[in-house]
Amino acid sequence: MSHALIQQLWHDLEQIELIDPHTHINPHAPASKTLADILGYHYYTELAHSAGCPREAIEEPGISPKEKVRRLVPYFAHLDNTIQMDWFLDIARSFFGFTGDHLTEDNWEPFYDHVETVLARPGWEDEVLKRSRISKVFLTNDFDDPLTGFDTDRYIPCLRTDDLVFHLSRPDTLQRLNKATDTDVRSIADLKSALGRLFTHFTSHGAKACAISLPPDFEPQPISDSEAEPVLQAILAGRELTIDERKTISCAVFWRLAEYCADFGLPFDLMIGVNRRVYEAGVYQGQDLFDQRTSLILYRKLFNAFPQVKFPISVLASVSNQELVSYCWIFPNVIAHGHWWYSNIPPYIEIDCRSRLQAAPRNKQIGYYSDMYKLEFALPKFRMYRKALAKTLVEDFVIARGWTEERALALGKQTLRGNVETIFNVS
Amino acid sequence: MSHALIQQLWHDLEQIELIDPHTHINPHAPASKTLADILGYHYYTELAHSAGCPREAIEEPGISPKEKVRRLVPYFAHLDNTIQMDWFLDIARSFFGFTGDHLTEDNWEPFYDHVETVLARPGWEDEVLKRSRISKVFLTNDFDDPLTGFDTDRYIPCLRTDDLVFHLSRPDTLQRLNKATDTDVRSIADLKSALGRLFTHFTSHGAKACAISLPPDFEPQPISDSEAEPVLQAILAGRELTIDERKTISCAVFWRLAEYCADFGLPFDLMIGVNRRVYEAGVYQGQDLFDQRTSLILYRKLFNAFPQVKFPISVLASVSNQELVSYCWIFPNVIAHGHWWYSNIPPYIEIDCRSRLQAAPRNKQIGYYSDMYKLEFALPKFRMYRKALAKTLVEDFVIARGWTEERALALGKQTLRGNVETIFNVS
Amino acid sequence: MSHALIQQLWHDLEQIELIDPHTHINPHAPASKTLADILGYHYYTELAHSAGCPREAIEEPGISPKEKVRRLVPYFAHLDNTIQMDWFLDIARSFFGFTGDHLTEDNWEPFYDHVETVLARPGWEDEVLKRSRISKVFLTNDFDDPLTGFDTDRYIPCLRTDDLVFHLSRPDTLQRLNKATDTDVRSIADLKSALGRLFTHFTSHGAKACAISLPPDFEPQPISDSEAEPVLQAILAGRELTIDERKTISCAVFWRLAEYCADFGLPFDLMIGVNRRVYEAGVYQGQDLFDQRTSLILYRKLFNAFPQVKFPISVLASVSNQELVSYCWIFPNVIAHGHWWYSNIPPYIEIDCRSRLQAAPRNKQIGYYSDMYKLEFALPKFRMYRKALAKTLVEDFVIARGWTEERALALGKQTLRGNVETIFNVS
Repeated sequence: MSHALIQQLWHDLEQIELIDPHTHINPHAPASKTLADILGYHYYTELAHSAGCPREAIEEPGISPKEKVRRLVPYFAHLDNTIQMDWFLDIARSFFGFTGDHLTEDNWEPFYDHVETVLARPGWEDEVLKRSRISKVFLTNDFDDPLTGFDTDRYIPCLRTDDLVFHLSRPDTLQRLNKATDTDVRSIADLKSALGRLFTHFTSHGAKACAISLPPDFEPQPISDSEAEPVLQAILAGRELTIDERKTISCAVFWRLAEYCADFGLPFDLMIGVNRRVYEAGVYQGQDLFDQRTSLILYRKLFNAFPQVKFPISVLASVSNQELVSYCWIFPNVIAHGHWWYSNIPPYIEIDCRSRLQAAPRNKQIGYYSDMYKLEFALPKFRMYRKALAKTLVEDFVIARGWTEERALALGKQTLRGNVETIFNVS
Repeated sequence: MSHALIQQLWHDLEQIELIDPHTHINPHAPASKTLADILGYHYYTELAHSAGCPREAIEEPGISPKEKVRRLVPYFAHLDNTIQMDWFLDIARSFFGFTGDHLTEDNWEPFYDHVETVLARPGWEDEVLKRSRISKVFLTNDFDDPLTGFDTDRYIPCLRTDDLVFHLSRPDTLQRLNKATDTDVRSIADLKSALGRLFTHFTSHGAKACAISLPPDFEPQPISDSEAEPVLQAILAGRELTIDERKTISCAVFWRLAEYCADFGLPFDLMIGVNRRVYEAGVYQGQDLFDQRTSLILYRKLFNAFPQVKFPISVLASVSNQELVSYCWIFPNVIAHGHWWYSNIPPYIEIDCRSRLQAAPRNKQIGYYSDMYKLEFALPKFRMYRKALAKTLVEDFVIARGWTEERALALGKQTLRGNVETIFNVS
Repeated sequence: MSHALIQQLWHDLEQIELIDPHTHINPHAPASKTLADILGYHYYTELAHSAGCPREAIEEPGISPKEKVRRLVPYFAHLDNTIQMDWFLDIARSFFGFTGDHLTEDNWEPFYDHVETVLARPGWEDEVLKRSRISKVFLTNDFDDPLTGFDTDRYIPCLRTDDLVFHLSRPDTLQRLNKATDTDVRSIADLKSALGRLFTHFTSHGAKACAISLPPDFEPQPISDSEAEPVLQAILAGRELTIDERKTISCAVFWRLAEYCADFGLPFDLMIGVNRRVYEAGVYQGQDLFDQRTSLILYRKLFNAFPQVKFPISVLASVSNQELVSYCWIFPNVIAHGHWWYSNIPPYIEIDCRSRLQAAPRNKQIGYYSDMYKLEFALPKFRMYRKALAKTLVEDFVIARGWTEERALALGKQTLRGNVETIFNVS
């Protein structure tokens, strides 16, 4: 009985048109051009590398997209068990009529050519969005993105601030900031002013969020101008910063971003827990890992200081999920946001989804975002989530608590779509 | 098949009469007087606040109970998914004949009036206990509670010691201790003597446990009198303590409490992992959270030093449960105790219950306590647990291991009732 | 449907002949002689002790095996719920025709005698291996084991290095090393040379792995000879080491072992997370516990420095499993290895198995090892794992992803057997 119910509810959830609240789509090239764009997603390159593929083979300068795929495919024999390859199969079947069990050395080449033809069809971008039931897509924009040349109603800008918070001391960061804001930053006052101009620029182009990813040991603190000023001067003087100075300037910039989020009414997406470049010889975008020893208690000052700012929070470690549920249950401004990266696999999604739906207010949780780089991935990734969601809604609500299917569906719809609208103020 | 078996076993578990081994019942007003007593439980006020209800609206001085409920109800539309609202619905249906799907702005007022009538019936306290199949209830008593004016056979005193361990430097704590014990504490020797009098007072009034809640970074250590004495003198002199001095006096008092637990044969309930006042603007009792980065390894000296003291342990973070299972499996004096607070929701109860039942001795685990403030909550909270317990007993024992239902039921009965009797020496 | 499928797949998995990649078998006495050998497994003594059995009762010098069992059995009434007792029942039924529900004071003695008769049968060792479908067994050998007098093709040596890394300062460690390698270690250069001789000795006797268990706070670091030399000299001079010196010499030895693993092409099994002697009054081998606050990030330098060394990793805390999955997914040289000790119970195996199978390359995970001290335990422990594996394969692959049973079985076979062959270079 429950199996049929889950299938029915999943089918109903599939009909909901979505706004994808976090992606890495390039609005100037949102859809794939070849199979290499799809299989170049870091999940495939890093898993192939982990399974034995040399990095040099797939990152050799100048190789053609087709050659790259040719070199990757032999390693997929080691990956067919992964849910990430299941996303690919879903794409291959849903969009390109693939009928095999798996992509192999025997069948990849004609498929490559076929995919290229389909992707070249006029209107593919619209088609893939329509068939994926995605109406709008949040972007991840560099702070100096001009935000021009694309439809900001469909591709919603989002101010990504990692560079400002963690790499202000890199020579090009201040140069980029100066250029983007037509400023010459010589003081903390200038810096604040420049940051304000970024917010004006982004919100005037329809931005709906500020976002950042954060290492597991980051602890936001208010930093006064007088504490921050000497560090900025050291950066301007080209002096290398101490560890403490790095923390000071990171916290100083971060806190001022939160202040501007308050001023401009933008939610501040926090993606907590990533250590960058842990595996230095890894493939592009396949070098980051985490330390499970982190806690949302590190953010208590922030959450207390900015009650008017909504903080949609993603956690990288599944062991952080109970904290996220609990902080979301207590703090009005903490929102549980999606299932991120290493936690974005069914066993973790299921337990995390169950706990959020049963313990946090229904208006404070956003079920899922795709995190995709190319539009084709929204369909399989949201589908994976919708299956987990349907299972939870049926088992924990319809069966365990006697809810009607309509009522369970409405809860699913709210976490998938409704809360994206209310929390990010889009529709 | 398994569904019907689970229902049957759950029904059988519901027949077991219980002793509730940890609550916050006020024995002078154990049952609710109005719906505001029920909906004033911090779960509802904090969740409503998290969902958007201003604290001031529900904590305005002087508002009537009915007005408080009127202000809370609109936010329940955001909370019907939570298991906490499911507890309320179970109360509303089981005790007050509620037939709706949810408490709304349209139906709350006549229900409020009806509930008030039912609660005013003579003998309600006895009735709710009988219908909930609860025969005895452990209390949480301030150390200076006179323990008079109530039936200590039904309402079993428990010496709660947070104030003594963590707030001895507050001016009123020593005053209260002096008054309660007819002492004038001027030295560590006096303090020890006063603590001893508390134990005499409590055990002479039928106390069956000493209890305390502890922050995630607490690490019990033996502290000599000569180390503790200067800190006590600083407190007596009204000097503010350093962080290290606070740790010293906390450990000193804690260790002496453990010594008295040994002397008086009392179990020492440890509730490990809560950070107090994390969200300072939160509603009453809705400000505490946790840091998952804690470990029972911090208690190794305590467990080794007091083999004769039973330590029923509650952990706040579900990620601590495996440690609890393992420490309970190795240390004869460590007992797994209930499912506490943020871990008290079905997804965490299920995994925690499964691991305890399959890996720790059956005589060393207490299934559940209600933690309730009003008697009406025993029924839905224990029911939630019994459902999870029935599922585990059927799936992991009847089906997976071929146990008879009778044998599985006996295991359930032991964790629900039998072990409370043997561990706390009550019957 | 799924229940029948799981039974069928489990049955198929039971037919696979295995190589057990980690045990503590003594190759000179691999099988049990009496029931006391079986029930002397630390799981039973420590659980009985935890349930109330005094250590002195079962560790009294000079008691007979039968008397030891007599004293243990009464406590088994408290342990019949545990999966560990279920292993015993499986042994009792599978090998010795036991028909009861549980071993009790009433039925143990004739059973003891019967078991003794069976174990004395000629060829028992071969029989138990054959009936358990185990063809080869990895050992855990002290570094100074002569590795003679047994069949190293069936019992594969493994160089265990805890003593060298963590106890080099104990007087007998260097004496044992000197004797085993015919060296007189007076310098770090000598120490390196001696370690190299150990690798030559072990690999010439068919060793297929180097192994070590590590405390939760261990962080491998390269240590230069000039840093290590003064610490070695302090050890040679009999001076007690400081904490920092201990860390220095541990890291120095550990790093050189990794270098030799690279030179000799041996995988380096890391068993991460155990704190030794936490419960000092515990029974033999029943004193160790863990601190969940550890992270694989501590091993980043090691994983980066030795890309040519395979690191099969076991984690003690289930909360570490997601890190293990993720590090295995990113680092080509990190391999997920079995389900260790406190994580070796079905609720944790199930979630850990699910996440590994869905997110890490299929050629980089070894499903299980028995960790047994006596051959009789391979059957029940692998059976427990195969049941969990069958459940995962059916639910997550056959049902959720439409795999054929043949394909699911092939995946199971690879994690159970095939990867042991390829990763450890055995067949």
